[in-house]
Amino acid sequence: MSRLYQHGTLAMLMGKQMQGTITVAELRQQGDTGIGTLDGLDGEVIILAGEVYQAQSDGQVNHITDPDTLLPFASVHFDAPTQKLPFSSVTFSNLSAQLKTAQLQQVFAAIKFHGDFSHMHVRIAPKQVPPYPSLLSVAENQPEFEAENISGTVVGYFAPQIFNGPTAAGWHVHFLSDDRQFAGHILDFSAEQVTGDLQIFDEFVQHLPIDNPDFRQMTLDFDGLIAGIEASEGGRK
Amino acid sequence: MSRLYQHGTLAMLMGKQMQGTITVAELRQQGDTGIGTLDGLDGEVIILAGEVYQAQSDGQVNHITDPDTLLPFASVHFDAPTQKLPFSSVTFSNLSAQLKTAQLQQVFAAIKFHGDFSHMHVRIAPKQVPPYPSLLSVAENQPEFEAENISGTVVGYFAPQIFNGPTAAGWHVHFLSDDRQFAGHILDFSAEQVTGDLQIFDEFVQHLPIDNPDFRQMTLDFDGLIAGIEASEGGRK
Repeated sequence: MSRLYQHGTLAMLMGKQMQGTITVAELRQQGDTGIGTLDGLDGEVIILAGEVYQAQSDGQVNHITDPDTLLPFASVHFDAPTQKLPFSSVTFSNLSAQLKTAQLQQVFAAIKFHGDFSHMHVRIAPKQVPPYPSLLSVAENQPEFEAENISGTVVGYFAPQIFNGPTAAGWHVHFLSDDRQFAGHILDFSAEQVTGDLQIFDEFVQHLPIDNPDFRQMTLDFDGLIAGIEASEGGRK
Repeated sequence: MSRLYQHGTLAMLMGKQMQGTITVAELRQQGDTGIGTLDGLDGEVIILAGEVYQAQSDGQVNHITDPDTLLPFASVHFDAPTQKLPFSSVTFSNLSAQLKTAQLQQVFAAIKFHGDFSHMHVRIAPKQVPPYPSLLSVAENQPEFEAENISGTVVGYFAPQIFNGPTAAGWHVHFLSDDRQFAGHILDFSAEQVTGDLQIFDEFVQHLPIDNPDFRQMTLDFDGLIAGIEASEGGRK
């Protein structure tokens, strides 16, 4: 049994619910590896070997050590790869094609690459304050950063098409450099030779903040929801 | 913490994957109450107090006692209601309106009614054989049964709109009479006075049959998926 745990949904962020509803301590009980964002959509979180890092929108990377730090959305798992695969000339665009034999389409999976990346292009969500806007309007105005020849780790998830809404269908991956100076939500990357750790889950656990009245009273614009998630979280298929 | 566990998805059934992929014994570890169907979409399953019953398409109700019996799709939880609510003149059509103050829209919840029903209208899926058809084509030709003044139990779930695809958004409820002679997937019901047990979940666990090659290779027609689920599983909103 291998489990991906997700707190909150992307639909919630689209529904302007960006208040933190789970603590770092609670999240760490569900996994040692993952991605997310902090209270108010404050940056891009990456969790590696149990350590939590935040890329904030000025490009600075913070090591989050306060266990009471709140997150509105995060996905975590316990790192235990089922396959280690060598990749050559891998980019975000060709990642699915390179993994075709792994038959990921209908399952949840984690990918973790560590190595040297010839190019890394990320964006970082800027912190919002109440009353929160929609995720889509935040996504339209986010700082982007690029780096060349950088060593680090890519971590994130593949989700099946039918879970677009709760999460982003396709790939949703974050990056953290080995020197902990560069991080963010990946828009594009390329690497000549890296090893990819693949982990396929048989359980997807969706945890919801049922005690939060704002969440319970949320209304969603379903017509714009899927297009909004694709535009803002940008899952590569 | 309160958890709804689902094995398989309605999208899988739409994708012609009706082979059983979890045993009754495995399912019972995840809950003592719930609904589902047997291998080949063979009837309507209702689980009450740990006992598993199947309505088969000729209307007969079977007590399933073989722990190795396989199911392609089922949802279960451990019965522990958070609210007991009196209902007057309740029907399937007005159920959501009567539960408006419970604010279910964004959460997963279980309902369990026990009492006397003035009217009960169910349908029962007929067993299919490989190569399996789509759930939608099965749903177009299913036996229906009606009863008046019948004592029994309604059990099922409410799911949020964004989970249409993995499951049926809105209500999906089954019925079993107290004499274990009448059961099925509810199309309509009415009751003058019943007590409803409501249980709201903070976790929705989606379990997938990742070791099944047919599931892994499945392709889905997304354009028809949501319409098909609504037409076949008919969740009342």
